[in-house]
Amino acid sequence: MSDTTSFSDGSPADLSARETAGLVASGQLSAEAVSAAFADRIAAREQDVQAFAHFDRERALAEARANRGGPLAGVTFGVKDVIDTADMPTGYGSAAYEGSRPPWDAPIVALTRQFGGVVMGKTVSTEFAMSSPGKTRNPHNTAHTPGGSSSGSCAAVAAGMVHAAFGTQTSGSVVRPAAYCGVVGYKPSFGTLNRTAAKALSDSLDTIGVITRDVRDAAFVTAALAEQPALAQGRVPGAPTVGLFRTSRWHQAEPATRAALERAVAAIRAAGGVVRDIAVPDDFDRLYALHDAVMGWETPRTLSFERWILGERISPITRAFIETLAQATRADYDAALARLKDRDAIVEPLLAGCDVLITPAAPGEAPAGMPTGDPVFNKVWTLLHTPALTVPAGLGPNGLPVGVQVVGRIGDDAGTLAVAAFLEDALKALQP
Amino acid sequence: MSDTTSFSDGSPADLSARETAGLVASGQLSAEAVSAAFADRIAAREQDVQAFAHFDRERALAEARANRGGPLAGVTFGVKDVIDTADMPTGYGSAAYEGSRPPWDAPIVALTRQFGGVVMGKTVSTEFAMSSPGKTRNPHNTAHTPGGSSSGSCAAVAAGMVHAAFGTQTSGSVVRPAAYCGVVGYKPSFGTLNRTAAKALSDSLDTIGVITRDVRDAAFVTAALAEQPALAQGRVPGAPTVGLFRTSRWHQAEPATRAALERAVAAIRAAGGVVRDIAVPDDFDRLYALHDAVMGWETPRTLSFERWILGERISPITRAFIETLAQATRADYDAALARLKDRDAIVEPLLAGCDVLITPAAPGEAPAGMPTGDPVFNKVWTLLHTPALTVPAGLGPNGLPVGVQVVGRIGDDAGTLAVAAFLEDALKALQP
Repeated sequence: MSDTTSFSDGSPADLSARETAGLVASGQLSAEAVSAAFADRIAAREQDVQAFAHFDRERALAEARANRGGPLAGVTFGVKDVIDTADMPTGYGSAAYEGSRPPWDAPIVALTRQFGGVVMGKTVSTEFAMSSPGKTRNPHNTAHTPGGSSSGSCAAVAAGMVHAAFGTQTSGSVVRPAAYCGVVGYKPSFGTLNRTAAKALSDSLDTIGVITRDVRDAAFVTAALAEQPALAQGRVPGAPTVGLFRTSRWHQAEPATRAALERAVAAIRAAGGVVRDIAVPDDFDRLYALHDAVMGWETPRTLSFERWILGERISPITRAFIETLAQATRADYDAALARLKDRDAIVEPLLAGCDVLITPAAPGEAPAGMPTGDPVFNKVWTLLHTPALTVPAGLGPNGLPVGVQVVGRIGDDAGTLAVAAFLEDALKALQP
Repeated sequence: MSDTTSFSDGSPADLSARETAGLVASGQLSAEAVSAAFADRIAAREQDVQAFAHFDRERALAEARANRGGPLAGVTFGVKDVIDTADMPTGYGSAAYEGSRPPWDAPIVALTRQFGGVVMGKTVSTEFAMSSPGKTRNPHNTAHTPGGSSSGSCAAVAAGMVHAAFGTQTSGSVVRPAAYCGVVGYKPSFGTLNRTAAKALSDSLDTIGVITRDVRDAAFVTAALAEQPALAQGRVPGAPTVGLFRTSRWHQAEPATRAALERAVAAIRAAGGVVRDIAVPDDFDRLYALHDAVMGWETPRTLSFERWILGERISPITRAFIETLAQATRADYDAALARLKDRDAIVEPLLAGCDVLITPAAPGEAPAGMPTGDPVFNKVWTLLHTPALTVPAGLGPNGLPVGVQVVGRIGDDAGTLAVAAFLEDALKALQP
């Protein structure tokens, strides 16, 4: 993946994560100066955006001063507040756990710091990464939702408050809010990033994702944290073959999303790529039922303490969501697990010989108010363990961002990210 | 599985878990009386055995008085101290975390209570369920180890302090110590019991297991907690076909273990079963390298905070273990995951048409002193995600228990438990 981002002559906070790490490593920039620039951005925007569950400027700058260097030297991170940190409270988005203080950093946080990253603060999550919203607003229009559940992480990156932020996705909690906020939200192949000590919902689905300003930063950060350098070294293909995949829920794609996909198709073709129209298999819609069966069985049990002991101390929205999920049956769950034993065999025919698919990232622009949005275009890819990321693809009729989702083969994160970078470049080239 | 255990006229603590649940449900016995009887046992034996990291008689009896009934009504449990509890400290076996108090019960604990079980206390674990031993002694001879890492759970069941206890197994931490303590240690198929909020080592391997006095209690408890009634309803076959499988490490099987397997073979045949001698495939030994690659890559990363931040606050044995694991390479890890994509395809030929395999549970009797023991006969089955349980099969030359391990097909826990119950009955029938 070639690097086309040019240096900025403005704030250090304008630099990409990969540029920042290079400059900090070579001593041209201090991690503290970088963090201070981002802390200024937070000070300027936080009152409107409310992306942070916990931010302490002095603590963040002290962490930056103590920076130990490494591949992520000086890169600033937001950590979704369902992920444990030893030195900041972790509230899991719930009043019931407000002020909790785990005795450890989750591995993804410890690795971030070990590799030189600086954790600026904890970003707002919906309650237990489900659908009861937090306080965060969409930075593009604070009357609209940032989406959820990784609301604070997506809003923080969109508002320029951090280079990168962690989210978690069980249905569509990384890709959809990132699309709403006009940033890149990348859910890697299942298991790529260590998910221990992130509040669990579903052992078969829970995935840590990364939100960044552009595709190359997502690849850069994930390659470092997964210790898979190859992940950021996928060659941007001269002429990728991209499948346009509408899913069986195309009727839920609003005009804004359809237009974004049309822009993506035009951009890919203008840049020399090939776009094929992919027929949706008759049985594709059954995959939705499999997701419902897996999450429906696992999540109410994983949240047993919250369901049976906390009870009314958790929000009515969360309680209702858990009870809806709990209608899933053991028989459906067992059948789903059996069907999912060989996910490659399901994914491969869907790709139909293409390098990747493009498909909606969300139904449309971010809705007004605070709903987290419908994961209808995300949950199948979470279920199937494929890499999936949203690339910003212009604005909708309300002036809010719309994304296009790129989906690849399980484990082919390098190739998927490379085509996503090609698409990102092509969309920029298309703009007037 | 028919139930052959007869009523005891002694303490309620002599009753099996399934008998207890029936009597409590029908009002013939109170959960409090059961817990009081077990608390008396704890008072009598704890000074010697030291199975508990935390035990508070009054708290346990209060929990029993508040018992809400259910399939596990009145059944007493020990919870390994790497599993979170809201109302008792959770120390993860480490001085570094002593007195930690998570804000929740792990799902397996919340479900136990929801289904009527009574948690008596937290049982001792080695540090982070690795190899740095705790204070627990083998109840059969306190100069010997109970094995590890689920040392307190196995010793507590063996000393009659609880009906059942939870353990965790990443290599051999349930089956081996259970064999050393002369109890049943059952590692179900991967994913059978919810493992959230148990201290993680390896996402691909970590499994919650159950330790009980006999096979039918293991089936009874696990069927309730996994909400899989069928798991306790496997029909004990009239004439099971059992494969005697020596593994590629037979040279590590001591005379005590070889004699126990001979007793098992004789018992099965005497009871009408068929035993076949299974040839060990030439490439079986490669599976050990796969386990080392998977745990070696995952565990040092999952313990990043402990490794990089706690550092010298954790024991030298644990630190050395982590650094040994950390020699694993990304290439070996990736190759192992690729090889393990279809575990059924590896397991099926090993079973060679048999209902189950019998194989050593441990090299021999519990060693003197406090080593946790060698998981050489356990780690492959953890890697392969099969059900595996140890059945007590007499005593070795030092008068300490020796177990025989029963291994079945992935997901065939009902069948595996049924044959294990057949073996347990057959061994009892064989005794003079």
